[in-house]
Amino acid sequence: MTDSRVVGQVRIVGTGLLGASIGHALMNRGVDVILHDASRANVTLAIDYGAGRAPADGDQPGLVIVAVPPDVTADVIAAELHAWPDATVTDVASVKSGILAELTKAGADLSRYVGSHPLAGRERGGAISARADLFFGRPWVITEGDTARRRIVEDLVLDLGAVPVTMTADEHDSSVALISHVPQVVATLLARRLGGAPEPAVGLAGQGLRDTTRIASSSPELWVQILGANAAPVVDILRAYRDDLDTMLTALERPDAQGSRRAIAEVLAGGNAGVARIPGKHGQARQFSQLVVMVDDKPGELARLLTEIGEAGVNMEDLRLEHSPGAQVGLAEISVLPESKQGLVAELEGRGWKVAEAFE
Amino acid sequence: MTDSRVVGQVRIVGTGLLGASIGHALMNRGVDVILHDASRANVTLAIDYGAGRAPADGDQPGLVIVAVPPDVTADVIAAELHAWPDATVTDVASVKSGILAELTKAGADLSRYVGSHPLAGRERGGAISARADLFFGRPWVITEGDTARRRIVEDLVLDLGAVPVTMTADEHDSSVALISHVPQVVATLLARRLGGAPEPAVGLAGQGLRDTTRIASSSPELWVQILGANAAPVVDILRAYRDDLDTMLTALERPDAQGSRRAIAEVLAGGNAGVARIPGKHGQARQFSQLVVMVDDKPGELARLLTEIGEAGVNMEDLRLEHSPGAQVGLAEISVLPESKQGLVAELEGRGWKVAEAFE
Repeated sequence: MTDSRVVGQVRIVGTGLLGASIGHALMNRGVDVILHDASRANVTLAIDYGAGRAPADGDQPGLVIVAVPPDVTADVIAAELHAWPDATVTDVASVKSGILAELTKAGADLSRYVGSHPLAGRERGGAISARADLFFGRPWVITEGDTARRRIVEDLVLDLGAVPVTMTADEHDSSVALISHVPQVVATLLARRLGGAPEPAVGLAGQGLRDTTRIASSSPELWVQILGANAAPVVDILRAYRDDLDTMLTALERPDAQGSRRAIAEVLAGGNAGVARIPGKHGQARQFSQLVVMVDDKPGELARLLTEIGEAGVNMEDLRLEHSPGAQVGLAEISVLPESKQGLVAELEGRGWKVAEAFE
Repeated sequence: MTDSRVVGQVRIVGTGLLGASIGHALMNRGVDVILHDASRANVTLAIDYGAGRAPADGDQPGLVIVAVPPDVTADVIAAELHAWPDATVTDVASVKSGILAELTKAGADLSRYVGSHPLAGRERGGAISARADLFFGRPWVITEGDTARRRIVEDLVLDLGAVPVTMTADEHDSSVALISHVPQVVATLLARRLGGAPEPAVGLAGQGLRDTTRIASSSPELWVQILGANAAPVVDILRAYRDDLDTMLTALERPDAQGSRRAIAEVLAGGNAGVARIPGKHGQARQFSQLVVMVDDKPGELARLLTEIGEAGVNMEDLRLEHSPGAQVGLAEISVLPESKQGLVAELEGRGWKVAEAFE
């Protein structure tokens, strides 16, 4: 009766953001989801919101998903492997090697364990922020394990609308150190500089600073555990980062000395090259053309704009709103395929929109 | 015959992004704009695009705007003060103290000079990226100067739709070091780490990394000059940043040592506090409520959503599109006033939209 690849009961241990989101998504597919959490209040909340049901006598989960904080993940996996001698057990912790090492040391039955990690999350945590679509279209790493057991986890990933990616635990850990854990540290250290700054200085902030520091609003409790559990790969990258920072500092301490300008320029050019490697929408690195339209800040105006873009038969690849302190007008920066741009500009101007001189 | 506060001819020296954008905006108001650039090709391009006209015999500009690269700004200001003995001269360079010092040293007529700096820009430069609305709603700092001359520059700022902000040159330079120059360095150093990374690692990148590194795609040529010209305030902040980085590195090198977790947590909590100081839309720090709607990736779908939000009488405070590699569906995260949220969710679900379980 279910609309899922996953067969049988699924037990989720830990009903925070990830566990509860998995529960919602599987419930939507008709799966029998059993929820457990060390905190009675947490699990009650998740059940109230419809992420699953309480455990009952006779439960026989075929798949157990451990979604507890990183610090206790290995212990909980070991306990679940022991409690359910036939079940496949996976986890969603954002660090993988340490867990594998702890399980090996504890003599756990690794033939039934498959590590995994969804690259999804929000700044806000808890069952209360859970969303059935949290994993939709996101990469979900699956690490070493028995082939048949890995297929069961892959079915779960596909049921949740995520994209399975295969890596070893070590490859995973160095990858997430690079694309997630080090950015978290870097954004945090930058945001800290705002702490004691004069109000007028902070008032000049624009989109650049907002973007660069956005993730620094994440939970310190969670990140202490993540950084602690993946310390070695994070340290490797941060040391290289610090070497570059020292190069920049040395050059800026004597900006007019011979070689300083060149050193600064080379650091900056390396940044250009790095950012160009990040995949964009749909995994492509393809460049889109932008146009900027002024939109009155009142209900319906942006909708009218987008309706008229739709009527012109043009697909928007991305949209970014810009607002400024004190302004009652927003700018909509619209990305389209380069070949669509000129026609769209003419169409919008013909309909009376103020399309900024968006030459490119 | 003009729709401007600025009176008389305006001469713009330097027809890059900023100079050409000012030209477009003043031309739209009917001002007689004279363009000059050391590069004949640049000025011809800007004139072709309608940012102003070529100089002519008998020109008597009342206001001269110097919009050339930071390295040559002081020399050009001095030359313009000399060439037009009655004109007010301003500039738009992103660093102010060094220019003032150079002008003082050169014995320039400082009674007619007013430094200024619009907090506006894009990753792309050149007259070809110019936009009349580039400054709309953005802060525009005006520094020391004669009161009457400052009023003339303030009129310019208001004509361009920007928000005048008064600061000394030193206050300005330490402010932009904090909110613009140091973030540029930090984002650049992070992006550099992606340079040699394995493809699968970069493939896991999400919005966090994209946001944190976006500004690292800016022009190295321009930023060498900006960082060189504002080196001292940037170094001060980067040293404090480096001290925090060292604290983090020391703790991560021995994550299980006594005090390490606490040190990491304190750094992270400081980041939370810093990011909370950045003003949001309309200069408010007010928190909005978010809901997330799934939108098919085809023309007109997002427009239909926003039309229906408009029909519900709800004003969107912000909108963010999320896409993922391989997904043909996007998520629209919509920010609204908290009191509007529940009604809007019900309205959208009633119209068949899939509104994610956006509990908060």
